[in-house]
Amino acid sequence: MAITVVGSVAFDSIETPAGKRDRCLGGAATYFSLAASYFTNVRVIAVVGEDFGKRQEAVFQERGIDTRGIERAKGKSFFWEGSYMDDLNQAKTHITDLNVFAAFEPKIPEVYGDSEFLFLANIDPVLQKRVREAMPGAKMVAGDTMNYWIKDHKPALLEVLKGLDVLLINDTEVRMLAGKDNLVQAARAVLEMGPSSLVVKHGEYGATLFHGTAAKGKAFRAPALPLEEVVDPTGAGDSFAGGFFGYLAAQKEITPAAYRNAMFYGSVMGSFACERFGTERMQQLSRKEIDERFELFRELTHLD
Amino acid sequence: MAITVVGSVAFDSIETPAGKRDRCLGGAATYFSLAASYFTNVRVIAVVGEDFGKRQEAVFQERGIDTRGIERAKGKSFFWEGSYMDDLNQAKTHITDLNVFAAFEPKIPEVYGDSEFLFLANIDPVLQKRVREAMPGAKMVAGDTMNYWIKDHKPALLEVLKGLDVLLINDTEVRMLAGKDNLVQAARAVLEMGPSSLVVKHGEYGATLFHGTAAKGKAFRAPALPLEEVVDPTGAGDSFAGGFFGYLAAQKEITPAAYRNAMFYGSVMGSFACERFGTERMQQLSRKEIDERFELFRELTHLD
Repeated sequence: MAITVVGSVAFDSIETPAGKRDRCLGGAATYFSLAASYFTNVRVIAVVGEDFGKRQEAVFQERGIDTRGIERAKGKSFFWEGSYMDDLNQAKTHITDLNVFAAFEPKIPEVYGDSEFLFLANIDPVLQKRVREAMPGAKMVAGDTMNYWIKDHKPALLEVLKGLDVLLINDTEVRMLAGKDNLVQAARAVLEMGPSSLVVKHGEYGATLFHGTAAKGKAFRAPALPLEEVVDPTGAGDSFAGGFFGYLAAQKEITPAAYRNAMFYGSVMGSFACERFGTERMQQLSRKEIDERFELFRELTHLD
Repeated sequence: MAITVVGSVAFDSIETPAGKRDRCLGGAATYFSLAASYFTNVRVIAVVGEDFGKRQEAVFQERGIDTRGIERAKGKSFFWEGSYMDDLNQAKTHITDLNVFAAFEPKIPEVYGDSEFLFLANIDPVLQKRVREAMPGAKMVAGDTMNYWIKDHKPALLEVLKGLDVLLINDTEVRMLAGKDNLVQAARAVLEMGPSSLVVKHGEYGATLFHGTAAKGKAFRAPALPLEEVVDPTGAGDSFAGGFFGYLAAQKEITPAAYRNAMFYGSVMGSFACERFGTERMQQLSRKEIDERFELFRELTHLD
């Protein structure tokens, strides 16, 4: 089944202990759609500026991603500059230039209308809600958010959460959203806000899935791969989301076992994302490499 | 097979968001031996003061732990006072009174001589080495240490590492010991110092086992249980070590599969330790409860 994703397509300048890159293609919708494209058809809704050229367009097209929903606006694309010199788990933001993204009004191509899966990447919850309402045919909706929206736009965010099947956020965000320090208590509080499943991303320690039954202590933990070199963690969370949701969208039936596999595929895609700068690794994977790493994750965690 | 453990037997005053306890029985050797006692015979080498009475002695005896190696000295037992009010993952130490522990000279009862398993809990590496040399019959030796010994007593610690089969330390300690930020690189460097296996404890995120083959990327990750209430994390790491090493000592043959199970039993015992203050939970478990929780850990991590 096709996934429509709405979110940022951007340029990133990144510095890590492994080196530096200027103006790589980035953005949540970019990482998400590249990762998900190994599992199912993906359609993007975003806005870019005049600096988004054929070379960037080709990155999507080579993975068969539908870019008809990427609007070209006058001005420059969203630009982010950050570094991970002290802590690979935590980006330090130097510059955030919203540029054309500041006035983003998602426009949904009619041909996207039959998408049964919808991913609302980290953008203004007012826009997330508008896209969700404009796509009533979406049977399963997942989304992301960040501290900024949790802190200063909570009422709008709570409206979005009511309509989500799966929320994917990190440890800090789930604790902030729930106002509780204990992860299980925080997860339960967030599940009461609407989503029937919650994926909490722990960075280098993997991720935990809490179901609506979290009240009964039901959870599933996927590890992260211990990597010898983390070249660039930018986009690892969005790539996790792409692997997770892409796998689910490709299933005939979404069973508890499918959720578990999806957690592993999410971790697999997140681990690949960190191996090179920007989207480099995400552009050039094969399904064989992905499935081999899935087996590595199984060996890493299974008793027999 | 019997395990001999050398380490601290102490009194702890603990404050956590769940409450406060004065002078609970504590110490690394106490938690370790209680946890290991559910799997095999355990013998303790430690020193206590005149404040260690029949009530404390009974905690060991009720679990069938051999206390003939616990020396009674004039003065007071090791005392620690700490709190976890801001962060349950990190104790804040208020008082450390070494008392009789300051002049600890481990004395090994002759009856302990046939122990095939030896655990060197976190004490002065000079003493760890002395005990190891005094027990040449030990076929498998595991140990722990802490930032203080890594920072200020490294040469003595490196001598101990040469004779260890398994080192169990936490994230911060492995990075400090290796002088490397990346966990895989740090683990490899530590494995080159002597131990053939390294267990890195990640607190609420579980633990990772690196084998001598870590150079080839071989690792195993055990999760921690997402707990709804962490009453008191004191001793969780020592209880992990007790479950891990106790399980191994009970096996006829120490296979890679045994190591994996041991990682899970370590996590199981660590999770129980957090559920009540001090050693309360560790004193009153049943093997049935332990094995049920082991199955819960399997469900938490396994795809099918």
